[in-house]
Amino acid sequence: MSAAAKPASESGAARTDGRTGQVIVASTRAATGVYTDRTGPVIDAWLHARGWLVLDRAVVADGEPVGDALAAAIEAGLDLVITTGGTGVSPTDQTPEQTLPLLDRQLPGIMEELRRRGTAATPLAVLSRGYAGIARGRTVVINLPGSTGGVRDGLAVLTEVLDHLIDQVRGADHAATPAAAHPAAAHDTTPPTAAPRKGTLPKDPRHGH
Amino acid sequence: MSAAAKPASESGAARTDGRTGQVIVASTRAATGVYTDRTGPVIDAWLHARGWLVLDRAVVADGEPVGDALAAAIEAGLDLVITTGGTGVSPTDQTPEQTLPLLDRQLPGIMEELRRRGTAATPLAVLSRGYAGIARGRTVVINLPGSTGGVRDGLAVLTEVLDHLIDQVRGADHAATPAAAHPAAAHDTTPPTAAPRKGTLPKDPRHGH
Amino acid sequence: MSAAAKPASESGAARTDGRTGQVIVASTRAATGVYTDRTGPVIDAWLHARGWLVLDRAVVADGEPVGDALAAAIEAGLDLVITTGGTGVSPTDQTPEQTLPLLDRQLPGIMEELRRRGTAATPLAVLSRGYAGIARGRTVVINLPGSTGGVRDGLAVLTEVLDHLIDQVRGADHAATPAAAHPAAAHDTTPPTAAPRKGTLPKDPRHGH
Repeated sequence: MSAAAKPASESGAARTDGRTGQVIVASTRAATGVYTDRTGPVIDAWLHARGWLVLDRAVVADGEPVGDALAAAIEAGLDLVITTGGTGVSPTDQTPEQTLPLLDRQLPGIMEELRRRGTAATPLAVLSRGYAGIARGRTVVINLPGSTGGVRDGLAVLTEVLDHLIDQVRGADHAATPAAAHPAAAHDTTPPTAAPRKGTLPKDPRHGH
Repeated sequence: MSAAAKPASESGAARTDGRTGQVIVASTRAATGVYTDRTGPVIDAWLHARGWLVLDRAVVADGEPVGDALAAAIEAGLDLVITTGGTGVSPTDQTPEQTLPLLDRQLPGIMEELRRRGTAATPLAVLSRGYAGIARGRTVVINLPGSTGGVRDGLAVLTEVLDHLIDQVRGADHAATPAAAHPAAAHDTTPPTAAPRKGTLPKDPRHGH
Repeated sequence: MSAAAKPASESGAARTDGRTGQVIVASTRAATGVYTDRTGPVIDAWLHARGWLVLDRAVVADGEPVGDALAAAIEAGLDLVITTGGTGVSPTDQTPEQTLPLLDRQLPGIMEELRRRGTAATPLAVLSRGYAGIARGRTVVINLPGSTGGVRDGLAVLTEVLDHLIDQVRGADHAATPAAAHPAAAHDTTPPTAAPRKGTLPKDPRHGH
């Protein structure tokens, strides 16, 4: 744990080079002490191993406390918040409902991939309802299932994309990272050769988007 | 067919142990008799074989009649409603549009899995637009395609998750079903051993979710 | 290029049998000439090879110009618009945000399949946020990534479904195309034999959808 981790200001002006993250455990039973969550420490350890500054994790009851903890982490300008638990289909599973209103952008492919990989271990993986996305244009939010298997699958997906994801959210210059500027671009970095072309239809005066 | 199946009251007070389901066939041509739907009987038989109480299936025209039949089944407090048909991309395919407003929660992973499996038979499976979800916190709603292949794939997915899904929607105690409480948990049931930790950031006063 | 391609009127009255499409390249760097887009010509060539009438492609800056170009193409009643670029997670990637408000219907399976295939080349494919859908009940809109690999994967998916998709959006008679009327139906064309059944629950008077 690094209680000393200083969350970056929203403007990013004061941020250190270190990336800041927090784990939120959504589990009424864990929050009340009748159950010991085993996934939070796994995610904390994964973040530490990657050199992140990790805030003390929050263990909160299902429902609104999850939204409160998420909002506080986003407000603090953290780079990443990973929740674990509350993504299932029981009435108390409320993590997706608490997360969605806080996201500016969704990243549906992360959850598709998590569910798809999960089916190799259990068909129940298709029932996971979590979201992945970006809040306030800065904080990446990931809802992982509360099971150790689900967390393992989720971290495997994140291991492959997280650095690029954070770089891009921070607005890394496309020109500076040509191969990584677009998903799926990494395997094709041949320099451009053709001349640009331009042409468009007349602007629709009724278009107001 | 079990016309005698008594739908549970919304409170669940009068419900039998038997689970109640209904199939809604969305097909203007079937409803007008110019086409014989072959998928409805397959789904009915699948439910019967699993011991469900199955209401007479509805065969309705595409569009609003689908929404009306769905709303009636949800109002009756059924555990499950499966639609077949109307999930494609022609103008008359309106089942997703009729279904979405009735859902409290979506289960996107079920449709992802249905489409993914479908591509093994035909690439056109990616065009299916159906939803899966939960209505009024009780009734599971599944939109299957109107093709026998699509229904076969859909029932294969449901066979693996339906019992758990219904148990969870009914609010089965997490503590009573530890291995099944979270998707992907079934393969990892080692008892918890570590001590719970707690810690959170200050609450954001501006958070109103 | 076919500058002579005449977009069909919205009513479809004046449309030729040829299908009309346009590519929109979303790239501020390409629009300002500091970068040469290589994906637009690939998509143009793919459309030409399939016999489409292809309008001059638009190369526009990220953000609102993408929405303007899309709206103009939809207003012109084109059968298909394919965008390339702007589907990633950097702040300037705005193509999904510009596209979504213009769609009547989404086709999530196309993007799921694109992302899934993309992961064979790079795990970053899961970060692609593009939409596929239908605008004004007529124009199919597809957001491809701006990378050559992403476009290759996307065109591979489209090659398998585009003709059927366009036929269906135009309202091809189900009876006339029984095997193709529903996704996943193509592998199962046995003629129907069972008698239709009908039955529904009483209509819910509170249902207003």
